[in-house]
Amino acid sequence: MKIKIQNALLLTMAEGDQLRQNADIYIEDNKIIAIGNAPEGFVADELIDADNHLVMPGLVNAHTHIGMSLLRNYADDLPFWPWLTEKIWPIEDKLTANDVYWGSMLSIAEMIRSGITSFADMYFFMDDVAKAVETTGIRANLARGMVGNAEVGAQKLAESLTFKNEWHGKADGRIQVDLAPHAPYSCEKPFLEHLLKTNEVEKCRLHIHLSESSKEVADSIESLGMTPIAYVDSLGLFEYPTIAAHCVHLSDEDIAILAKKKVNVIHNPGSNLKLGNGFAPVKKMLEAGVNVALGTDGSSSNNNLNLFEEMNLVATVHKAVHEDPTLVPAYTALEMATVNGAKALGLEGSIGQIKEGYLADLIMIDLKKPHFYPRFNMTASLVYSAQASDVKDVMVNGKWIMRNYELLTMNEQEVCEKANACALNLIGGTYVK
Amino acid sequence: MKIKIQNALLLTMAEGDQLRQNADIYIEDNKIIAIGNAPEGFVADELIDADNHLVMPGLVNAHTHIGMSLLRNYADDLPFWPWLTEKIWPIEDKLTANDVYWGSMLSIAEMIRSGITSFADMYFFMDDVAKAVETTGIRANLARGMVGNAEVGAQKLAESLTFKNEWHGKADGRIQVDLAPHAPYSCEKPFLEHLLKTNEVEKCRLHIHLSESSKEVADSIESLGMTPIAYVDSLGLFEYPTIAAHCVHLSDEDIAILAKKKVNVIHNPGSNLKLGNGFAPVKKMLEAGVNVALGTDGSSSNNNLNLFEEMNLVATVHKAVHEDPTLVPAYTALEMATVNGAKALGLEGSIGQIKEGYLADLIMIDLKKPHFYPRFNMTASLVYSAQASDVKDVMVNGKWIMRNYELLTMNEQEVCEKANACALNLIGGTYVK
Repeated sequence: MKIKIQNALLLTMAEGDQLRQNADIYIEDNKIIAIGNAPEGFVADELIDADNHLVMPGLVNAHTHIGMSLLRNYADDLPFWPWLTEKIWPIEDKLTANDVYWGSMLSIAEMIRSGITSFADMYFFMDDVAKAVETTGIRANLARGMVGNAEVGAQKLAESLTFKNEWHGKADGRIQVDLAPHAPYSCEKPFLEHLLKTNEVEKCRLHIHLSESSKEVADSIESLGMTPIAYVDSLGLFEYPTIAAHCVHLSDEDIAILAKKKVNVIHNPGSNLKLGNGFAPVKKMLEAGVNVALGTDGSSSNNNLNLFEEMNLVATVHKAVHEDPTLVPAYTALEMATVNGAKALGLEGSIGQIKEGYLADLIMIDLKKPHFYPRFNMTASLVYSAQASDVKDVMVNGKWIMRNYELLTMNEQEVCEKANACALNLIGGTYVK
Repeated sequence: MKIKIQNALLLTMAEGDQLRQNADIYIEDNKIIAIGNAPEGFVADELIDADNHLVMPGLVNAHTHIGMSLLRNYADDLPFWPWLTEKIWPIEDKLTANDVYWGSMLSIAEMIRSGITSFADMYFFMDDVAKAVETTGIRANLARGMVGNAEVGAQKLAESLTFKNEWHGKADGRIQVDLAPHAPYSCEKPFLEHLLKTNEVEKCRLHIHLSESSKEVADSIESLGMTPIAYVDSLGLFEYPTIAAHCVHLSDEDIAILAKKKVNVIHNPGSNLKLGNGFAPVKKMLEAGVNVALGTDGSSSNNNLNLFEEMNLVATVHKAVHEDPTLVPAYTALEMATVNGAKALGLEGSIGQIKEGYLADLIMIDLKKPHFYPRFNMTASLVYSAQASDVKDVMVNGKWIMRNYELLTMNEQEVCEKANACALNLIGGTYVK
């Protein structure tokens, strides 16, 4: 299949590159094969006119729990620990594979609509999450979240490795499998040691929550004499490429460790605000050279999967924290949502930019909306003025999965109804409409 | 004209009222005449089925400068004072009446699309802003922004009063005219005294910027020995109903004054974040009983006119500031955007709720979107999950101004193009598309 997208306003996100006008993009099978001049003998099977549309790399949601959409708007405005332990965990205990499948489908519908083409997920019933990824055409790093002591953890690790053997590299290469010890406070030390020993052979990317709340950090210092970051570093966890979600409450020493060990920090500003966890030290992390990407977290703590909202938040909230409006410029927010996210998922050089030889993961944004006028600075427009709903077309791995605002790989209304029915069955209540 | 909206999911925003399912709303001319049972002999000229739609009061954008949309995304990520004095003011000096008209039309298009049915504006060339309000069918409190010394101020006050005589109560009563001394730092004391003296007769509502930046407050204390709030209070400004924009940097004494004098504080979280002005003490103001409403500010400092974004920000940012996720609950954010805004504009009892006898200013939200499933708590859904683009229909004063996502009172694409051309002519650059 050969596709030509012509006349685009093109934001490549390639280093040093400017916005290009009237750009042509050539796609063959799952790759971008040229930008600008047509490759010799290229005859397009599909020709797309992108006049008044901006083409950019698909966004990377580098930390989420997509099955949790079933718990959206069920428990809000509550203190963090009661929310987690009295509301979220008891319902999660009741979740079935079928629930997670429909919750995942609902989340994928929402993510595609907001221009997300890749995501890193940590949850359970991961076979069903993988099936949803396979059928919808999106790209994902998937990991079974693991908690517990040595015995329970070992069992979950075995499940994780079975899942890896079945799904790593599958769905035309769109699925990668990572290992996800949930957090230092939820995984006992012998289990973490066993996992890291096992990973000497498996060499998986790791996905973990770190230093999300001030209570977590205080508890860690009290019980271990170390911050969560220093603790997992002392165990050797950062010897493997790591997706570290949150990292809100950090000491300067923590930030030095994250920089030195090239840990990928996933900043989830919407979740951190909503759960009252505070403001991550993004300025200091950027100054230290840490790779900071963006995530939505689960939609029970956000309560959506809208990376445009996260870009807006990271670019504005830290200005107020430091009373410095030059901080986290718009372009940096876009890098976090694209190139930095690609790096976090281990896909640097494959996705996150529109570049010859890269996988064709891209989005088209409809610019004929009042908030896109006047057009002085598209970078600022995308971060400060845009809405997720401006995304009109989405391509992953060379295939359209949304065209002209229509989802092509699922029956969207069926997905919404099924997910709603699962949620009501799980939590109770009647269908509000 | 008689309109029946049936089968709606109805959020009235009336005190103590719950969400109603399958609600019917009866509208005659510009008023809501009944909810629930049909008035005797009511025969609808237009019947709207609102199945799977939520009906709620139109949102009130209680502080903005709509002509400024021409300056959107032209100067970003800059320090506050150079941004204002070197970028914004020099361009504003060049604005023509025609520019302000098309900028206002662009802003009104964007506001209607985000469910805003009323706004409070402070700018100049207000005749042209009023013409845009008249033609588009939206509702507005309009005020000519005044700055300067006694002489210049007196001239602008005369212009303001001429404007008031021409437009107050016009456009089927949709336009009210207020008086707007820009800020204590930009209006010299003799002018403020003259204005307040004049207002003993005119009895206008006032609209002013107060305590927006820490520099403004520090300068005021240094030069006057008082905070901006204490200063204007000492002049007697708060003897009149006042729309006080920003109020970010406040002492406890300031908050006591705002509460005692029943000042309407307009919180502009997006602008305060974007310009690096910090976090307004919303928690303390609410505790003190201050009426806090929401504004977008101008789209050069936001950079959109999206009150759903502001509701999300006020409900989440203050959770993080205080590390307390119970703060500013979703319903309070909705009150700020509706009933509190109505009160700020002097329209309490007329708009801001869906209630018998109130003006028919309402919006319909399309709930068939993935982010509106599951449906446990619509209040949380609207504040934490919704996008402005979910607004499908907008009615002001009993007339539809948007139906099925289509603007009915303007040629939207013409407005976008004209505004873009004005902006390019003013600032320079080429049309990026």
